[in-house]
Amino acid sequence: MAHINVPPGVPGIRSLVMFRPETGQYLYQLAQVLLRDESPISQADRELIATYVSYRNDCMFCMSSHAAAARCLYGEDEATVDEVLIDMQRAPVSDKLKSLLHIAGKVQILGKEVTQADVDAARAQGVTDRELHDTVLIAAAFCMYNRYVDGLASLTPPNREDYVEMGKHLATNGYVSPKPQTV
Amino acid sequence: MAHINVPPGVPGIRSLVMFRPETGQYLYQLAQVLLRDESPISQADRELIATYVSYRNDCMFCMSSHAAAARCLYGEDEATVDEVLIDMQRAPVSDKLKSLLHIAGKVQILGKEVTQADVDAARAQGVTDRELHDTVLIAAAFCMYNRYVDGLASLTPPNREDYVEMGKHLATNGYVSPKPQTV
Repeated sequence: MAHINVPPGVPGIRSLVMFRPETGQYLYQLAQVLLRDESPISQADRELIATYVSYRNDCMFCMSSHAAAARCLYGEDEATVDEVLIDMQRAPVSDKLKSLLHIAGKVQILGKEVTQADVDAARAQGVTDRELHDTVLIAAAFCMYNRYVDGLASLTPPNREDYVEMGKHLATNGYVSPKPQTV
Repeated sequence: MAHINVPPGVPGIRSLVMFRPETGQYLYQLAQVLLRDESPISQADRELIATYVSYRNDCMFCMSSHAAAARCLYGEDEATVDEVLIDMQRAPVSDKLKSLLHIAGKVQILGKEVTQADVDAARAQGVTDRELHDTVLIAAAFCMYNRYVDGLASLTPPNREDYVEMGKHLATNGYVSPKPQTV
């Protein structure tokens, strides 16, 4: 049961946004810009970064829901998501994406963990300022979302299949609707 | 020097918002709702929570700027800020505020660190759902801001006096202006 009185049966961050839509609107709008709007990083790869950080923060709700969204966006390559979570360095993704996931993992620990050597290694793979910026902010933002969702003990469905429809919805519709509190 | 090409001489998050105002606008608007708009927690106490979390995340820029804002808002009790950073449990703040700072410190580690016992202890001090919600989200949000600022190695002025004017500005004007990128 959540630590505060949120609508019963509503999972994860959605219940918290219903509790306080004044903050929730900006949380959703930030997610929309970071994960759906224009970026040199594909939507699938951005959802993967979000999933990877949420996994490292042990946030079952965010990890499961964004993994489900990433699987939808990767299509026939959906197994990529689980391979990255099992062993990122051996997963079938580009060295460039690995360099970004590595930096996201550093951000998950703490901002200062990102070293010049990490950035140089990413630059050697062709990473641009925008890719670096978006990776750091996605990782930082999920350090917020994960703590918000778990810090208030919001409802977390236990099974992978509970997230399939949620993932399809997020992959198709994104994070902002005319009524964000009903997404 | 920052890891990306931001305007030279502009400190901290402001330089990152100038690099990417599409995300920056929501980061500032979220800070405004969390730290300035209506809440049962005073603006001074909310800035103190932000400062405490930034201190624990070793983010010199956010710690210094929000400490400066909190000192302005506490007025003649400005020493409270440093006393909390030195030893929160012995600082001259109410047991209720200590229970919220304790929970903020748990969120700084990870969301799941907040236990039912922590929440029960806060409830015994009269903490309401809104106070608990706002504390958790402020702490979570600063886990994002801190990582964004340090993960991209944005400019961090080194001296306490460098933040005095910034603190006055934040205490007086908040986080949203007609041109957020010039705040």
